[in-house]
Amino acid sequence: MASNAVVLLSGGLDSYTAAAVARRDGFDLHALSINYGQRHVRELEAARAVAQALHATRHLELNIDLTPIGGSSLTSNAIAVPKDQAIDPDVIPSTYVPARSTIFLSLALGWAEVLGAADIYIGVNALDYSGYPDCRPEFIHAFERVARLATKAGVEGRPLTIHTPLIDLSKAQIITLGLSLGLDYGLTHSCYDPLPDGRPCGHCDSCQLRAAGFAEVGASDPLMARAG
Amino acid sequence: MASNAVVLLSGGLDSYTAAAVARRDGFDLHALSINYGQRHVRELEAARAVAQALHATRHLELNIDLTPIGGSSLTSNAIAVPKDQAIDPDVIPSTYVPARSTIFLSLALGWAEVLGAADIYIGVNALDYSGYPDCRPEFIHAFERVARLATKAGVEGRPLTIHTPLIDLSKAQIITLGLSLGLDYGLTHSCYDPLPDGRPCGHCDSCQLRAAGFAEVGASDPLMARAG
Repeated sequence: MASNAVVLLSGGLDSYTAAAVARRDGFDLHALSINYGQRHVRELEAARAVAQALHATRHLELNIDLTPIGGSSLTSNAIAVPKDQAIDPDVIPSTYVPARSTIFLSLALGWAEVLGAADIYIGVNALDYSGYPDCRPEFIHAFERVARLATKAGVEGRPLTIHTPLIDLSKAQIITLGLSLGLDYGLTHSCYDPLPDGRPCGHCDSCQLRAAGFAEVGASDPLMARAG
Repeated sequence: MASNAVVLLSGGLDSYTAAAVARRDGFDLHALSINYGQRHVRELEAARAVAQALHATRHLELNIDLTPIGGSSLTSNAIAVPKDQAIDPDVIPSTYVPARSTIFLSLALGWAEVLGAADIYIGVNALDYSGYPDCRPEFIHAFERVARLATKAGVEGRPLTIHTPLIDLSKAQIITLGLSLGLDYGLTHSCYDPLPDGRPCGHCDSCQLRAAGFAEVGASDPLMARAG
């Protein structure tokens, strides 16, 4: 029998690829998506499609409205999503959602413990990324330590591993990996600020990183034709 | 001007006391309560009363339904709350909610970052407690490290401190401290499994620890007369 893994699934290109790696590694996928009041809540439709495409054993959607906390252009309409900006990994942009990875990993940890799962997958990436502090390897290692101390499993000596299969890959390498696994990136959604009809804006950091990645690979993005 | 602190406020005796210590320490209180689908959701009414009594600058209630995860007698009706059991700190009871402290601290961390607050208070206690792994000092220290790595504040060198003023105190010492600060424990709610009319059951671990604490202090619990 395959072991269970909890996979954080936003519906974007990275989390789809990370989930596919978990599946390739032989795990039964327990996909976790979070409706946190994100501007691009449309990504949750993509998460459902992706979970189905990967034959997830279960797909759980949790609601945690972070808009009363705000402080990010993804959770506050008072802050605009930056467009057509040069991406500087040393500057944390307004799309950074305070403590988001910590919150999501905590929820994944709770579910993993109930499932008896010793493995969590998250598609964070510290190379072609937006400079979010909670995507760095040192953060992941620190959270792994928290996970071991926080849980009954940890107390009983059963280790918990946070898998970050994409953390050292460029966006082009992620796409190459996903294509080799047969993924259909047309199912995903990456844009931070989609048009009213759901199409990607083509101008935010996430759209830019995605476009540059496909260009480098020399592949066409199934979503690109729909960009505004 | 006083600095802001985020205070996790369940509405119980411990979190009320921890919040009062934060106030005594000179902070402006930003109280955070979580409606997580707990069996004893009645505690949130107590949290509102307590926040008001402590003149909190703001009291934020966030909703995160953990019942789809379950795995605890506090978040699953399929598991009974233990009654009249001897409390063994080496055994983690069914009232343990997987990863709860990690989830709550993560949410507090997000709010602290938006507020520019460098201080979080949590009323965890590792002495007269129910053996939850995520109430131990080593867990708190590990989370503090996560907090520093996860955030923009951490990257910019502004430290974040998790204050646990009760962690080494017995329940009697906590009550003595609170009474010295003039707290009205009649505002609080501790019971895990209240009667339909909201009165404490008098038999769960939480009721037992509370009763033993008041007995040791030789004070009367303003809630005791209402116990079932």
